[in-house]
Amino acid sequence: MKFTKMQGLGNDYIYVNCFTEKVADPSKMAKILSDRHFGIGSDGLVLIMPSETCDFKMRMFNSDGSEAEMCGNAIRCVGKYVYDNGLTQKTVIKIETLAGIKILDMKVENGKVAMVRVDMGEPVLQPALIPVKSEEELFISQPVLIDGKEFKVTCVSMGNPHAVTYVEDIDKFPLDIIGPKMENDSLFPKRINAEFVQVLDSKTLKMRVWERGAGETLACGTGACATLVSSVLNGVSDRCAVVKLLGGDLIIEWNENDNHVYMTGPATKVFDGEIEI
Amino acid sequence: MKFTKMQGLGNDYIYVNCFTEKVADPSKMAKILSDRHFGIGSDGLVLIMPSETCDFKMRMFNSDGSEAEMCGNAIRCVGKYVYDNGLTQKTVIKIETLAGIKILDMKVENGKVAMVRVDMGEPVLQPALIPVKSEEELFISQPVLIDGKEFKVTCVSMGNPHAVTYVEDIDKFPLDIIGPKMENDSLFPKRINAEFVQVLDSKTLKMRVWERGAGETLACGTGACATLVSSVLNGVSDRCAVVKLLGGDLIIEWNENDNHVYMTGPATKVFDGEIEI
Repeated sequence: MKFTKMQGLGNDYIYVNCFTEKVADPSKMAKILSDRHFGIGSDGLVLIMPSETCDFKMRMFNSDGSEAEMCGNAIRCVGKYVYDNGLTQKTVIKIETLAGIKILDMKVENGKVAMVRVDMGEPVLQPALIPVKSEEELFISQPVLIDGKEFKVTCVSMGNPHAVTYVEDIDKFPLDIIGPKMENDSLFPKRINAEFVQVLDSKTLKMRVWERGAGETLACGTGACATLVSSVLNGVSDRCAVVKLLGGDLIIEWNENDNHVYMTGPATKVFDGEIEI
Repeated sequence: MKFTKMQGLGNDYIYVNCFTEKVADPSKMAKILSDRHFGIGSDGLVLIMPSETCDFKMRMFNSDGSEAEMCGNAIRCVGKYVYDNGLTQKTVIKIETLAGIKILDMKVENGKVAMVRVDMGEPVLQPALIPVKSEEELFISQPVLIDGKEFKVTCVSMGNPHAVTYVEDIDKFPLDIIGPKMENDSLFPKRINAEFVQVLDSKTLKMRVWERGAGETLACGTGACATLVSSVLNGVSDRCAVVKLLGGDLIIEWNENDNHVYMTGPATKVFDGEIEI
């Protein structure tokens, strides 16, 4: 089976062109191929497939074999894959995912996709829909008590729930201690992804993320979107800013006209491979 | 650059045929390519090169860029690589390494190498040469006190120092607590690799290893050799036994005639790849 390893901000997946390759049991294959010592090694497996309603369909499987809805870092790589490999000549494409239809706008340099802008849709701010247990209309800069210390938290859903907290010095912040306590706080019935953010200036936010069920990761696309929305709501950033993550930078814009959040970031091919399965 | 990812008991390296490929700065390349999110992902980089004195020369670089002397799991893969790719038709070959010349004896099935036997040389048992601070002639089943508990330890060097301890139940053994304390005990001036072993029967030993500077790993070839030598010295195993590690099984023989230790184990190709560098 031919495959391509690609990464977006260090989120690395195995991409398979299912127009030419057949993957019989993708859940099982994801587990086997993702193993970083006995397999190819990856965060998971992404299948690029025909779609009846869109230009392409994307299915993705985590390294534990579970099917994932969508990943902002992975879908940018899908855009780069289909354009660079000549599966499409269009630079604006629609991708069918389990999280709905996503629209990609690709910036091409020297015939290859360098950056991809993804329409991440509208943020959800009503506490009941995020979900957060609160009688407030919006959950903006609300106190959350952890280890006797009060954190001011803003909650946003981008299809998945996020709690954004501002800190003075993100490099020194004890994320491994506070992250899991925020994730599991009784305020959040479905737990929460916790972003901790240092405002460098109104156009630059530095963020670390504690992902629900995964711990600290190099990057989280929806978390970066939630952070920008939160920062606009708290008056600490412009509607378009760079969010700096451990894995690299994303440009996030919360568009005033359509209320959609747009994420722009890199997509990188690492290598092509072929494996006997 | 074309490469092949191979693994032996989960020890995975990137193998490059330097008869056809050129690697300008292997130390730097090892760091970049070994990164498991932004690169190919591996424990390191192995270069297969011409030799003036042997059939082939092997150079290996760890994922931190440092050059390694030799690795029993990697050298088996070198044997498989050169035979399966037609660089040699011989099944007994000599490989030049920084740890001296190693002789490989390859078992071929259906035209491909399945198992490789490596002559690991003679064990060193004198405490001063291992090194262990001791007035004893041999360091066999000697008491070592850790956290107030006495462990009976046997020390063997296979070019690197090992301390072997027998335990009742290796699965439940608190390796993460005892391992680092054994590694850094004041008895061992150059620290030590610590093997903890459960004797299943005289032909089967189950071992976990705490590697000096690396912590618990899936497998350690020299550690398996030291374990067999220790087990013979302690009268708990035959001169040939299976050593079961987390990453898989090795067959270790301490030959009575030449006093050499022979390690037989699998070598597996994972995939072929090509990367722009």
